[in-house]
This record gives sequence, structure tokens and C-alpha cells, in this order.
Amino acid sequence: MAVTPSSVSTESSAAESPAASSADLQALDADPAFALHRGGKLEVRSTIAVRDADDLALAYTPGVARVCSAIAETPELANNYTWASRVVAVVTDGTAVLGLGDIGPAAAMPVMEGKALLFKEFGGIDSVPICLDCTGVEELVETVVRLAPSFGGINLEDISAPRCFEVEDRLRERLDIPVFHDDQHGTAIVALAALRNAAKITGRTLGDLRAVVAGAGASGVAVTRMLLNAGIGDIAVADSKGMIHPRREGLNSVKQALAADTNRARFTGSTEEALAGADVFIGLSGSTVSEGAIRSMAPDSIVFALSNPTPEVHPDVARRHARVVATGRSDFPNQINNVLAFPGVFRGALDVRATTITENMKVAAADALAAVVGDEASEDYVVPSPFDARVAPAVTAAVAAQARKDGVARA
Amino acid sequence: MAVTPSSVSTESSAAESPAASSADLQALDADPAFALHRGGKLEVRSTIAVRDADDLALAYTPGVARVCSAIAETPELANNYTWASRVVAVVTDGTAVLGLGDIGPAAAMPVMEGKALLFKEFGGIDSVPICLDCTGVEELVETVVRLAPSFGGINLEDISAPRCFEVEDRLRERLDIPVFHDDQHGTAIVALAALRNAAKITGRTLGDLRAVVAGAGASGVAVTRMLLNAGIGDIAVADSKGMIHPRREGLNSVKQALAADTNRARFTGSTEEALAGADVFIGLSGSTVSEGAIRSMAPDSIVFALSNPTPEVHPDVARRHARVVATGRSDFPNQINNVLAFPGVFRGALDVRATTITENMKVAAADALAAVVGDEASEDYVVPSPFDARVAPAVTAAVAAQARKDGVARA
Repeated sequence: MAVTPSSVSTESSAAESPAASSADLQALDADPAFALHRGGKLEVRSTIAVRDADDLALAYTPGVARVCSAIAETPELANNYTWASRVVAVVTDGTAVLGLGDIGPAAAMPVMEGKALLFKEFGGIDSVPICLDCTGVEELVETVVRLAPSFGGINLEDISAPRCFEVEDRLRERLDIPVFHDDQHGTAIVALAALRNAAKITGRTLGDLRAVVAGAGASGVAVTRMLLNAGIGDIAVADSKGMIHPRREGLNSVKQALAADTNRARFTGSTEEALAGADVFIGLSGSTVSEGAIRSMAPDSIVFALSNPTPEVHPDVARRHARVVATGRSDFPNQINNVLAFPGVFRGALDVRATTITENMKVAAADALAAVVGDEASEDYVVPSPFDARVAPAVTAAVAAQARKDGVARA
Repeated sequence: MAVTPSSVSTESSAAESPAASSADLQALDADPAFALHRGGKLEVRSTIAVRDADDLALAYTPGVARVCSAIAETPELANNYTWASRVVAVVTDGTAVLGLGDIGPAAAMPVMEGKALLFKEFGGIDSVPICLDCTGVEELVETVVRLAPSFGGINLEDISAPRCFEVEDRLRERLDIPVFHDDQHGTAIVALAALRNAAKITGRTLGDLRAVVAGAGASGVAVTRMLLNAGIGDIAVADSKGMIHPRREGLNSVKQALAADTNRARFTGSTEEALAGADVFIGLSGSTVSEGAIRSMAPDSIVFALSNPTPEVHPDVARRHARVVATGRSDFPNQINNVLAFPGVFRGALDVRATTITENMKVAAADALAAVVGDEASEDYVVPSPFDARVAPAVTAAVAAQARKDGVARA
């Protein structure tokens, strides 16, 4: 193709924004995170060459009309002759972006681009960031349903709780492609994998463990649900007002359900009270936990202080008392990082054209992830590194196989 | 990055669709258009490298949070640090796909992918095909408004008339980014450019010409409006029921407006009657016009038989009587091809961050396109080839300059 991007661009729009002078931008770019983000992190490319009119007549009119007609007649052919079935929409409304809160769809874009980048780098998956200007659950659900013909899967991201639960539930009902809220299930899969290995090296099973979870947002609820499914001994959850239990008033429906299913020990006070004698602490709250509370836990305790960038308890402090300590940070051992899960989960689901992602598929992903560590598990190695090349293929294979067992695979 | 797409994909989903056996697919792939479309025509790639945890900490958490915060505080920074302002959504509801009609959003995807491919190849523009499952104008408009934070421009495509007019009008009102229905304006821009050169080589100006347009769909209406703006002498439009005139009953609002502004000669019968003595015929209807009707036109007549793949009159037949003949096909001279317009129009609009695409910007695009041909214009050369590397830069520069003159440029 004779015309290249550089030859047709008269100028860089980025360099001339009236709101940001080039001096402003230079100052921002002193931070390498800003410099790296200049102009965004993604591009769309053609996978075929268009060198001449003959190529154009196949890739576009008139040749493309024959492909469209065939898909209109046999809709399943869209899986063979379009990119739709292999593209994931990374969807947010910008209401719960990282630890920043409700910053809106436009400001959420760098995270969604980053997610798309990770999908490609770690899962070989094409994905498109979709930041939606929506004002409620209904709008968000309807909009994603309307978008669905363009995509093979929906990764929900950074949607505030408790809205995120209803959004995901309703989309799972409406759509026959995988819908996966990564803040919930990505975190839960990696946490379960880490906990399995932590239990193993301390000579216990999940059923032996009593856990306390700080945080009843997207990830707190999902981690709790997943650990219940996996057979944890007991688990209790706290939100910012204290432990969740059946006699607490003013609980939303999600927390009411948690109250019914958790906290068999019936803690009603603070997180720190519940931690006395507990085997496991999982922090997903942004709150803090004192060294004394960690010290009060059972022998061989397991502490996952996952809030980012500031863990609930500093890992060096936790390590004085706990046998296994994990965080969300890359500068300490045992990083609980969603990127260990979502690329393989979607890769496996897309490869077999799964209609949904079942609970079993998530557990299979966690087990596969734990198995990558295998017998090398130690206090400082309960999950693999994000850069361990075995991770995505292992998760992919496990998820695809489980989809077949669960009868949700179409290929 | 250690993990490559090939290493994590357990199998090709395309090869195992239950609905299409591999024998079925082999048979389809005997058509090179199908073979070329296998797996779709696009991919999303990262523009930055993620080699290690340090890169990851800048491109994703925690570094990305600083970029998000800055955009939340100063929204204009999204233009500098995300891809949104340089990405075009290629949006359809699949209601008027090529000549195939209402085949739905999923079957429209090959055309939208093709469009995205052309945006990249000819304009250096990243774009994303968005095929929407919408059932009315209201849904379509609302959905695109919700999508807008993710994009720098909206290219509407293959939306049925007269709905397309209202959809575009309402989106132009609601959004402060370029909205452009290519079936209307792309065709109109190229047709105006071609007509300017055709008039020139026959020693006339647009004001000297009486034209007859067959077709009152998206492109017929837009071509007519553009030629009126450009000062054509007279122009009359026919739909499938005959000439549009003020006394005709049952006209929709778009055709009522056309009736008021066109057909000063007051033709009330068939297209062929109106063609007697006319200077210009523009076919955008899929209907046919007889050789006799072409013969009845004025000397030095100009025939644009633009329906694809079957022109309203065969160009060899038309050429017996007309001085200049153009079609929509690549295998005859003077191909009126939208790809001559839309890449440069969007490139120019995005480069100056135009809030809209004005009528003047479209005329400027047409004039720039006509000027690429310049003094070399001849009966068989009234528009450049799509592969002429001068086209996109010329259109880009003209559109950007006109945006500044019109006060709609933000950069």
C-alpha cells in the first residue's frame, strides 16, 4: 500500500491539544508512566494485504458481499469468516477504576487499554476497550447486549459493587458468549490457587481453614463465594462497618446472602476480633490491619494483604507472624495478579466457543494455576510469576477441558 | 514476552465450528473471497512492549492509575494519553448492507471489518467495527452516544434510509466528535469531484447542468443535497415510484424536503422522461435505464451509473451516447469509490480534533479530490485511482484547513 500513516497525517493531534500545552505535557512525561501512555497503547491492524484493486475486490466490495450473504444464511459462519468470535470487549462504565473510584468512562480508558494489551500479550486474544457513558444497571446491560454481535466474549471491568453483581448476572442470562467480571473472578481464581498451595505447604486442606475476608466489594464477595465452593472450613466477611452476620441490619441483598452462607462462628464485631485464632486473612478492602491482629492468628497463618498499592498490613510486618504472605504487588513474593487468570480463562473459553464460564471452569483455572507451582511450592512461592510461560497454556487447557465436561463447549 | 499467541491456543475455534464442517468450509474457501476472510481481517496490537514486571507496572497497575487520575482531573488529557481520540467506530445496525438489504448486525461484520481495513490502509486510522443489535432509531442513537467516550469519531455505515438521516442528525446534535454516514457523504463527495471534472472537460460549470438522480436512499439524497449546495443548475430525483415533486402524495419528510428544493423543471413522470435533454444522469438506485433514454440526453452528457455490481446502464452502452461515463466498478474507467473520500475526511477531522464535519469540509474534500486529477482530466479520468498515493494527503489537508476556517477545529 503506497499510502502510509505518516504520509497522510498533517500533524499530531496529541501535540496540539489546546487544554494541555506542550510544556504541560513535557512535565507530565517526566513520569515514565505518562511517557509510555503518549498516544495510547493500542492499534488496529489488518491481517491481510491490500496491494491492488484485485485484493480490494475480495476484501471489500464486491467480494465481501458473498461472505455476508453466506453468514446471513448460515449465522454460524460468522465464527469462521469474521473476527467477532475471537474478539473480547473490555467493558467498563468507569465507576470503580482501580482504587480511584468513580472517575467516569473517559478516564478509565488507560486501564482498559492496558487490559487489552495484557489479553494480547498473555493470551494471544484480540480485545477492544469499550468505556460506556451509562447511568444505571439497565442501560449498561442493554448496551452490552446490543454490542454482543461484534464480540466473542465480554470482560467486565471496574464496575462498582453491588451493581457489578446484577450487571454480570443479567448479562450471563441474556448472552450465549462468555461474560466474566474480572475484578471478581480473576482475583478469586488466583486467590484460590494461592490458598491451595499455602494450605498444602502447611500440611492442611481447605476444609481445615477458617478465613476472614476484609472487604465485601466485587473481589471480596467473589473470593468468598469461590472459597465456599471449594470447601473452605469457615469464612467470615467484613465490610467497612464490621463483620457481616445475619442479625446485622441494612445489608443489601448480596450481603444478606453472604450473611446466610458465611460466618458460622458468628462474629459480630470487628475484623480484628474475628482474626484471633483464624488461619487465613484475605484483605480486599483498602483498610488496615494491625500487627497485633496478625499476631493473634493461629499458628502457620496465611495472610493475603491484596489491596494496592498499600496492602492492609505491610508484608514485612505480616511475615513476622504469618507462615505465608501474599500481596497484589510485584515487589514482594507471591503476587496475586489477575493476569495469571483472565488470559487463559478467555483463551480456553473462546477456543471451544463456550456459551458461558461455569463455576467449574473457574475452579479448573485455579487448580491448573496451583499445579504450575506444584511440588516447588514454598512460603515464598504459592503462585507462579505472571511471566511464567507455562501459566496461560495450563489455564487455557484446563478451562477448555472443563467447558467440554460441563457441556458448554460448541467446538 | 515469553508467551506467544500460538503457544497458548489449544486449537482453532474456526476449524471446529459444529455448524460448518471442514468439508463445507473447504468448499466455500474455493472462492478466494472466502479464503481471504478466514478468521476475519483485523487484529488489535499493543504499540508498546511489555517485557518485564517494570514495563507492566507502567502500562498497567500501579503506573496507569496516575494517568487515569490526571485524565479525571483534566479530561482533555485523554487526547494525549489514550487511543480514544484517534480511533473511529465503524457503526452499523446491519439494515442496509451493500446491495443485500437488512441482513442484520452479525452478517454485516465482514463489510465493517473491510471498512476498518481501508481506514488503516488508506488513512492510517485505527478503527473498530461495531455491529449493533438495535431495533430502532432511538436505541441506535442512545447506544452510540454511550459508546462515544471510547472513540474520536463515528463512521455510520449501511443503515437503512430514511432512518439513517435521523440517526445521523441526532448524533451530530448530541456528540462533539465527527459523525459521518459514509454511504451518504462519501459517495456525494466523490460524485461531486467527478462531476466537477466532467463539467470542466466539456466546457461547462455546475451551474450549466441539469441533472437527474435515480434513487432517493442514503446516497441519492446526499448526492442531491451536495450538488445543490455546490450550485448545480437543476436537479431532479426519482425513487422507485417516479419523479419526486411537490404534488406527489405519501412522501416521507426527507422526500418532501427534496421535493421543495429540487426539480424546478417539474417533472412528474418517469426517470426516462426526465432524462430527455438532461445533461447528467446519476444512478444510485439499482434500477435500469434504457439505451434510448441515455441517447435522449443533451450533447456531451455525463452518466454516472453507480449501482453495484450492476450499473443502471452498462458503461459500454452508455459510452455510445455520453461523453463521460463513471461507475462504481473497478473494471471500468472513472470508479466512484468512497475510499477516495472517507480516509482523508476522517484523517483531516481527527488531526485537528474537529467537533463536527461541516458541509464546507465535505465540499473542500471534493474539490481537493478533483484537483488531484487537475489538468490531466479526460473522459476516462475524472477521478483518481484509489491507489493514487496523493489522494488521502490532499483530502486530509483540505478538510483540516476547512475545519479551521469553519471554527470547528480544537487543535
